[in-house]
Amino acid sequence: MIETPYLLFLGDAPDQLSSKVAQGIRDWRPDNAVGQYRMEGCKADLRLPDMDLAEARAAGAKTLVVGVANRGGVISPAWKKVLVAALEEGFDLASGLHNLLRNEPDLAAVAKATGRALHDVRVPEVAYPIANGKRRRGKRCLAVGTDCSVGKMYTALALDRDMKARGLKSTFRATGQTGILITGDGVPLDAVVADFMAGAIEWLTPDNDPDHWDIIEGQGSLFHVSYSGVTLALIHGGQPDALILSHEPTRPHMRGLPDYGLPSLEAVRDVSLTLARFANPDVQVVGVSVNTAALDEAAALACMAEIEDRMGLPTVDPFRQGAGRLVDALVAL
Amino acid sequence: MIETPYLLFLGDAPDQLSSKVAQGIRDWRPDNAVGQYRMEGCKADLRLPDMDLAEARAAGAKTLVVGVANRGGVISPAWKKVLVAALEEGFDLASGLHNLLRNEPDLAAVAKATGRALHDVRVPEVAYPIANGKRRRGKRCLAVGTDCSVGKMYTALALDRDMKARGLKSTFRATGQTGILITGDGVPLDAVVADFMAGAIEWLTPDNDPDHWDIIEGQGSLFHVSYSGVTLALIHGGQPDALILSHEPTRPHMRGLPDYGLPSLEAVRDVSLTLARFANPDVQVVGVSVNTAALDEAAALACMAEIEDRMGLPTVDPFRQGAGRLVDALVAL
Repeated sequence: MIETPYLLFLGDAPDQLSSKVAQGIRDWRPDNAVGQYRMEGCKADLRLPDMDLAEARAAGAKTLVVGVANRGGVISPAWKKVLVAALEEGFDLASGLHNLLRNEPDLAAVAKATGRALHDVRVPEVAYPIANGKRRRGKRCLAVGTDCSVGKMYTALALDRDMKARGLKSTFRATGQTGILITGDGVPLDAVVADFMAGAIEWLTPDNDPDHWDIIEGQGSLFHVSYSGVTLALIHGGQPDALILSHEPTRPHMRGLPDYGLPSLEAVRDVSLTLARFANPDVQVVGVSVNTAALDEAAALACMAEIEDRMGLPTVDPFRQGAGRLVDALVAL
Repeated sequence: MIETPYLLFLGDAPDQLSSKVAQGIRDWRPDNAVGQYRMEGCKADLRLPDMDLAEARAAGAKTLVVGVANRGGVISPAWKKVLVAALEEGFDLASGLHNLLRNEPDLAAVAKATGRALHDVRVPEVAYPIANGKRRRGKRCLAVGTDCSVGKMYTALALDRDMKARGLKSTFRATGQTGILITGDGVPLDAVVADFMAGAIEWLTPDNDPDHWDIIEGQGSLFHVSYSGVTLALIHGGQPDALILSHEPTRPHMRGLPDYGLPSLEAVRDVSLTLARFANPDVQVVGVSVNTAALDEAAALACMAEIEDRMGLPTVDPFRQGAGRLVDALVAL
């Protein structure tokens, strides 16, 4: 558990895109973001108050989050001075970079001396159990994709937001680095040891009120040969009541696999249902989320109308339209 | 890579069953087993020459393999004296126990001082890549089960033996602790980090002669909710040309999951094929292996005849009958 609220560290970000982790926190958990810290030459701007460390502490910030990605995921020497000072000022540090905070000798030494925590969200901190398959109370929803990076996290966050706006009981359950930094909690599933993947998801989505929904962040795709095992662990550990199919309609091939075309939405629906039913016989596919960022408005609407007609399922782009129709589908279950 | 041949250490095994790892090495790789080391009170016997450490060294043994399982998988204090002496005599040590050799301070110190290796086959020693999905030359066969522990490893070892007996090119590819100790090499898949599971199987089954078969040891089941992700990584990383369905006909429920019945062989066939085709469009299900150890001869034959008739596939118990008909099916592909 990472202590909130955060000061979002943008460092010397070369452009806006490199700060997308910080942007995600700002967009989805604005209450967690008291301000931004920008160094000289920073080209990103979250339109949050610029603060130095003392101002952020005074505003209540407890953790400095490295919200910027360098080329190579390294911890830039230029950042070190600020990170060390932050520890000395009483901040914990959190990062999703490949290179770990804890492996930087200077940061580790200062954290130890000051008693502050270094949160590397790529590293599991919990000894997860082996999955026991027992049915749990409460409802669970999972997005499954035709590919990696088609908008599953965005769909889950939009669903959670729109459910809360209606006064429904909902929790976004993060399974990746960005999601964990956004919420301060979760399972870094891609770094969990094989035998414990499904158990980690059971641990993440425990017994709850009968009318509570866990909105589980999806990962990978059953049809992406590099990561499909991770996706199946989510389906069997999460024992979802509702599946949402996620798709990006302009993708020429599976991400990172030039020789692999995308599966059809029908194939993803059928295989996902067959496998998910084994953990939860009542599971249903309730809708489709389409990432239409690469299409203009007319093309996006035409694409979604075609899919809705073909699949017989409510089909939305949660970014363009909100997730309201998907919430309707969950409520109707 | 564990150096062969081995001296098989049975310690103070309380019964024959507790030495089943050693038995597997003796049955499947007799050339790797120069002798057995039994302590006072040992109730197991592999019918190998009893040897002390000096005799085993003289007979060429390079590694002492802990071939016995204690309750709890611990390294018994009673064994320590022998294990330390073995290191001092020039043996490497290998073990598949949960408690690691390397975590025993006395063993670690002596191994360091003598320059000997401690092989804990539960721990991956290789930085596996992320799977790239590229098609590889050579053929691959994988057994997929209705459940865990239904005879997939035995089926693979029997296939490999019977193929070699016919002069065919074949390699058994171990993916679990016992298989790794039997062959001295392999991937401890259940201990690999999620993102690298499929990549580890690609690494294990590289390009090969067009007429060479990798016989890949299966793990788990697509329908076992605790481990299904591991199974799917095997299917997508292994990109098998041939699948064999493995089944144990008297199992009342999925292993360790009292609320879960077993899937039908038809369900395993259909889901496995759908998912496997994405990595290898030419994949076929070529046969069924049935573990009939719990049935008498007449019941076993009746069970297999029923399955063969229903599935239209050659159906054998490799333990009772050998894997010859499955080899025929692979050759006919």
